Amino acid sequence: MTTQQLVNEIRRKKSFLCIGLDVDLTKIPQHLLQEEDPIFAFNKAIIDATHHLCVAYKPNTAFYEAYGIKGWKSLEKTIKYLNEKHPEIFTIADAKRGDIGNTSTMYAKAFFEDLAFDSVTVAPYMGKDSVEPFLAFDDKHTIMLALTSNQGAFDFQTRSIDGKEVYKQVLETSKSWQNSENLMYVVGATKAEYFKEIRKIIPNSFLLVPGVGAQGGNLQDVCKYGMSENIGLLINSSRGIIYASNDTDFTEAAVAKATELQLQMSAILN
Amino acid sequence: MTTQQLVNEIRRKKSFLCIGLDVDLTKIPQHLLQEEDPIFAFNKAIIDATHHLCVAYKPNTAFYEAYGIKGWKSLEKTIKYLNEKHPEIFTIADAKRGDIGNTSTMYAKAFFEDLAFDSVTVAPYMGKDSVEPFLAFDDKHTIMLALTSNQGAFDFQTRSIDGKEVYKQVLETSKSWQNSENLMYVVGATKAEYFKEIRKIIPNSFLLVPGVGAQGGNLQDVCKYGMSENIGLLINSSRGIIYASNDTDFTEAAVAKATELQLQMSAILN
Repeated sequence: MTTQQLVNEIRRKKSFLCIGLDVDLTKIPQHLLQEEDPIFAFNKAIIDATHHLCVAYKPNTAFYEAYGIKGWKSLEKTIKYLNEKHPEIFTIADAKRGDIGNTSTMYAKAFFEDLAFDSVTVAPYMGKDSVEPFLAFDDKHTIMLALTSNQGAFDFQTRSIDGKEVYKQVLETSKSWQNSENLMYVVGATKAEYFKEIRKIIPNSFLLVPGVGAQGGNLQDVCKYGMSENIGLLINSSRGIIYASNDTDFTEAAVAKATELQLQMSAILN
Repeated sequence: MTTQQLVNEIRRKKSFLCIGLDVDLTKIPQHLLQEEDPIFAFNKAIIDATHHLCVAYKPNTAFYEAYGIKGWKSLEKTIKYLNEKHPEIFTIADAKRGDIGNTSTMYAKAFFEDLAFDSVTVAPYMGKDSVEPFLAFDDKHTIMLALTSNQGAFDFQTRSIDGKEVYKQVLETSKSWQNSENLMYVVGATKAEYFKEIRKIIPNSFLLVPGVGAQGGNLQDVCKYGMSENIGLLINSSRGIIYASNDTDFTEAAVAKATELQLQMSAILN
């Protein structure tokens, strides 16, 4: 998917919501455990109910790997279902990968070719040659961690290199990498005041923003400081939507929570 | 496996060699492609031939994920085979994972419980709460990236925070994390002169050292500056050993290359 196609979808749906599919078998409605593939059954129900309210889905690979081969099968079925039923939806493999060059190429193949995601999240620690192999894929997007939403972000990301915070150095440096137009960035909503500074460095890049909802970030603040001419924001909510209820009404509860966010987004876009 | 058990094995085998199982179907002997599971067939042959020469095996997960479900099955069979046939061998899932707390716990379960590896590699960018969930597992080891062997290491890792390089800040900071005694670190062999400084910060921690062989690192230099009282080094070689030949003599060629390194290690240990 091209960035322009994503922007068009955002304008059409009046939503820049991304729903995180972080499926934990201890948290889903217990009646689903009788299904042959409870994880996929849960995802399918959530997708069927909410796809008109969001423009992206983001399975976090950890939740699938934790269940071994079974989990990978559920992930494969989920992305296949999304690509077949909703090809207009932007898909994100939240995998936070990164390795030396030839190895990153294998990861890129895994997520862009084998699983056919539109994008994958990567970690910046190993630098340029660990990220460029992902950027080499046309119409695929590499979403690099910049400033994350957790407490540990303050351990290294906000420390200062030559008078500039590490996450800003990451943003600056990555702009010179080959095919950097395929980069997007993770910036946590819990740090809304940082968006102003970030937009000075990358005025137009898309930002994937976790931390709204369960982690306490505020949508209005993020949009005030973080929105670009092309919108440039994907606001992620995972637990706040998919675990709104763990009973038989879980899809209705998810729709209610997603609608709440979509209506706020629609108001902001108008 | 405890660190002491690993040290005992190193002394018994006179080897601190780790063999990287980075299986690329385009590089293995072509006659293996007729096997039902060529990746596992290759790994099994390499393990059967070299297990007396090394103390650790390290499959890099990228090479398995690139083949989807099939690849994960090969990874599962490989670790199962190692745990059943060679429980004395230290196993490393080279996965370079890391995420917010509850998600890192899922990764830790995937590698420590579901796959039953002794250790996993992680990235430090997201800080303390992204790594501590891994450290919570008894007799499991978390190998954190410090100074990697690729060119991109100079993009951020060697930059200076408050007068101290990022990788040194990572080493320093991590010492205060809960269960930090379960930490090991990745330090590339291509930067042997850095080991002296590193040992001032972490005198006894085990270091996983890639970059000997294919990437040009020198074993003697690494040992001179990096060895601790408890040895404290696992020297990894992947391509240099497993792709020493891509013909029917590939195990003999792998044994020859592994023996070469093991003899040098034996001499250093005496």
